[in-house]
Amino acid sequence: MSENKKKIYKPRPVSGFPEWLPEVRAVEQQWFDHIRRVFESYGFCNIETPSVEELDAINAKGGDGGADVDKEVYVLERLHREEGDKEARLALHFDQTVPLARYTAQHFNDLVFPFKRYQMQRVWRGERPQAGRFREFYQCDIDVINVDNLPLHFDAEMPAIIWEILSSLPGMENEKFQIRISNRKILIGFLNSIGIEDEKLIVEITRAIDKLEKEGFVATSDRLRKLIYGHLPESEQPSSTDETPIRHFIRLCTLKFTNSTDFRNALEKEPNIRTDNPILQKGIEDLEFIMDQLAHLPKGSVVADLSIVRGLDYYTGTVYETNFINDNGTLDTSYGSICSGGRYDDLASNYINKHLPGVGISIGFSRLFDRLRQQSKLPLKGISPAQFLITLEDETLRPRMMETAQKLRALGHNVETYHSPSKFKKQLEYAMKKGIRYVWLLPFEDRTADEVKDMVERTQTATRIEDWKQ
Amino acid sequence: MSENKKKIYKPRPVSGFPEWLPEVRAVEQQWFDHIRRVFESYGFCNIETPSVEELDAINAKGGDGGADVDKEVYVLERLHREEGDKEARLALHFDQTVPLARYTAQHFNDLVFPFKRYQMQRVWRGERPQAGRFREFYQCDIDVINVDNLPLHFDAEMPAIIWEILSSLPGMENEKFQIRISNRKILIGFLNSIGIEDEKLIVEITRAIDKLEKEGFVATSDRLRKLIYGHLPESEQPSSTDETPIRHFIRLCTLKFTNSTDFRNALEKEPNIRTDNPILQKGIEDLEFIMDQLAHLPKGSVVADLSIVRGLDYYTGTVYETNFINDNGTLDTSYGSICSGGRYDDLASNYINKHLPGVGISIGFSRLFDRLRQQSKLPLKGISPAQFLITLEDETLRPRMMETAQKLRALGHNVETYHSPSKFKKQLEYAMKKGIRYVWLLPFEDRTADEVKDMVERTQTATRIEDWKQ
Repeated sequence: MSENKKKIYKPRPVSGFPEWLPEVRAVEQQWFDHIRRVFESYGFCNIETPSVEELDAINAKGGDGGADVDKEVYVLERLHREEGDKEARLALHFDQTVPLARYTAQHFNDLVFPFKRYQMQRVWRGERPQAGRFREFYQCDIDVINVDNLPLHFDAEMPAIIWEILSSLPGMENEKFQIRISNRKILIGFLNSIGIEDEKLIVEITRAIDKLEKEGFVATSDRLRKLIYGHLPESEQPSSTDETPIRHFIRLCTLKFTNSTDFRNALEKEPNIRTDNPILQKGIEDLEFIMDQLAHLPKGSVVADLSIVRGLDYYTGTVYETNFINDNGTLDTSYGSICSGGRYDDLASNYINKHLPGVGISIGFSRLFDRLRQQSKLPLKGISPAQFLITLEDETLRPRMMETAQKLRALGHNVETYHSPSKFKKQLEYAMKKGIRYVWLLPFEDRTADEVKDMVERTQTATRIEDWKQ
Repeated sequence: MSENKKKIYKPRPVSGFPEWLPEVRAVEQQWFDHIRRVFESYGFCNIETPSVEELDAINAKGGDGGADVDKEVYVLERLHREEGDKEARLALHFDQTVPLARYTAQHFNDLVFPFKRYQMQRVWRGERPQAGRFREFYQCDIDVINVDNLPLHFDAEMPAIIWEILSSLPGMENEKFQIRISNRKILIGFLNSIGIEDEKLIVEITRAIDKLEKEGFVATSDRLRKLIYGHLPESEQPSSTDETPIRHFIRLCTLKFTNSTDFRNALEKEPNIRTDNPILQKGIEDLEFIMDQLAHLPKGSVVADLSIVRGLDYYTGTVYETNFINDNGTLDTSYGSICSGGRYDDLASNYINKHLPGVGISIGFSRLFDRLRQQSKLPLKGISPAQFLITLEDETLRPRMMETAQKLRALGHNVETYHSPSKFKKQLEYAMKKGIRYVWLLPFEDRTADEVKDMVERTQTATRIEDWKQ
């Protein structure tokens, strides 16, 4: 007996690296299929890049990803590194933007521009393990890259795609969400128009506005007042209720506009906001164009929202965020953005001497999927993808079982065949546990025809293979 | 100008980590779709496991993977490891069997047995870079795991599935290949029947037979003669032409049998092979059962071939290998096995105190795909998944362009819309480069109806959206 007392290593989940049971994975596959179908219906082609990039290539990309991400990079080491190995150090990619930039530069001459690509891969971030934070997760990205100039057309295409996906993902049908759009040129142009050109100050103002949703109008306008006027003698500073241009702008940022006319009207009612600044003007025009292109979507699914500034990111024009909203239309602040992105001027200048502007958006797939899983909102079906189980009551029936299965498969059905002659009840139980709807009985003894048992309708009727043509 | 002279890191391919251009990736997706469809048509459910396993879990699995693989394991290191981090060491999985074993043990109580799963993921092996060797590649595995006993039914299902997949993968239709099956019990039983029980000797004999295909009958039987009789005084050793039982067995190993009757007949003609050894007998019966179940496949697609022993692997019964064959029916020895596997007695006893026998097979996806790619046998289509490009000759047509696109998408088509009003020739060129078949022209100026240009048939005709219902 001692040989049975082999030492056992009891496996445990690895924190931050999720895995699902088959029935959950089946829905995850449905999600990927659905997202892929929509991406492709807009003509986006797929690419996959290796899981790794050379560490030098990641570092060349510089600060775009931000210092926070750098810390989280995983590098590969061979368990038994041989001496004299002088390979480049490899790092798992932490997003799909660095790989896209590297790919576009490397294959530049083989690509057709505008390059519309989607990518649905795992990314890795070596965060400290904590609840709800994944260290390995899927992102679903689309980007359009062009040489020198990228038409605004594509900025308008992104939210239409995202709306179509999110509104019809299995389990998401009853969720309320909102795509919020702005254009960073509006903030920059406005600040320029009131004499603020200092980049550091602009970054600080951007950060403050990024927190507007959380901190509210009063705190934010107060913070901005101090940021902008703090260097003046106290007597020259506006009071916290003075109607300064920045205060007007922040008020505008608290509003949401469901169409370009409302947006334009609101702007025109703000005499303190001079729309003759060319950057500001361009930002407004671009945002209006996008809103007009999205007018066919249900009201409120997409809104112009000037508080969207995408923090410290490298975006230069259109910016997107997507949030769950509560039944009363307010933002569900308990959960970050489901899907974000924007326009950038320059994708790959670290890798190639070309000017490659782009626009893109990324669905935080795993986090969203896991949210719905935890809320038991995923439409789980059976464990088996099969619709049919052909039963085997006697070994002599095996050839007929195999033949029936092949014929049903040829009609496009998924079919399991029961492995050994056993009690019918046992086979029925197997179908039930695996979620197989139709149990097929071959002619045997008293039964002169094929019969099928529908586990949902609880019926059992004579049947023929040709009845199951799709 | 000096600011344009930014330092550029010119990206290069990372050896062993392949990536494809969009048109190649499109076929790779078709391959995955096809394999998945067939796996599911037999009722296999999908799982995905994390890219990593705890290193301790991999080590617990012990020598199954073989020392060769151990050396190739990649472990993860955080680029900036914080002091005091005491996380488990994580290693990228080098196959899908260790993850399956760990998964089955960990989720044992939530799974329904027989557990039929497929898995199509990347695996990583830190081999020294060399041509044709990947360090990151896809494997497509199916396995059936059961508790205590696994019916032979599943051993027969594997080759049927593999044959169905390989014979209809896009680009593989004209390739000739053969699935070769044996049962390790036949060799073991035979050796026992002639008095060979020493495990070390059995391993050496197995290795020699594994090389039969390469080294030929004479060299192999000579090597075995020495292995088995080498310890005897020279006068008692059989000569290299003496008809010893092992020589008879090797001769049998050089043959291929397309059905169980031929196999049985050949065995019965070998008086030196005593089929009364129970292990040998069981091996023969099992192999015959499998051959009988596969009798519906085209002749020669599956053969019994006793030279298949799967080297040092942990298989205990049925074993499979799949090879390309030349036009004359001989084996294409320039390329290893496309797809191999077999039955094992015990999947996960390192992780759980259960007896879990299984049978499985694995397609070396990336290597096979890359072979066909290099031979220009992949049926490449366009870069864009779109069938339609709606052209834009004037900005006023944009709303109608968007509407037409949405209507065609609703009918299930993939549609690109041209981004900006431009010369028709330029838009046509875009469609050609991207491989979009139908170019749609909206009514404009003299054109009173929608028209569609078929780039393949080279026609241009009036059309309506409803003509494109599928």
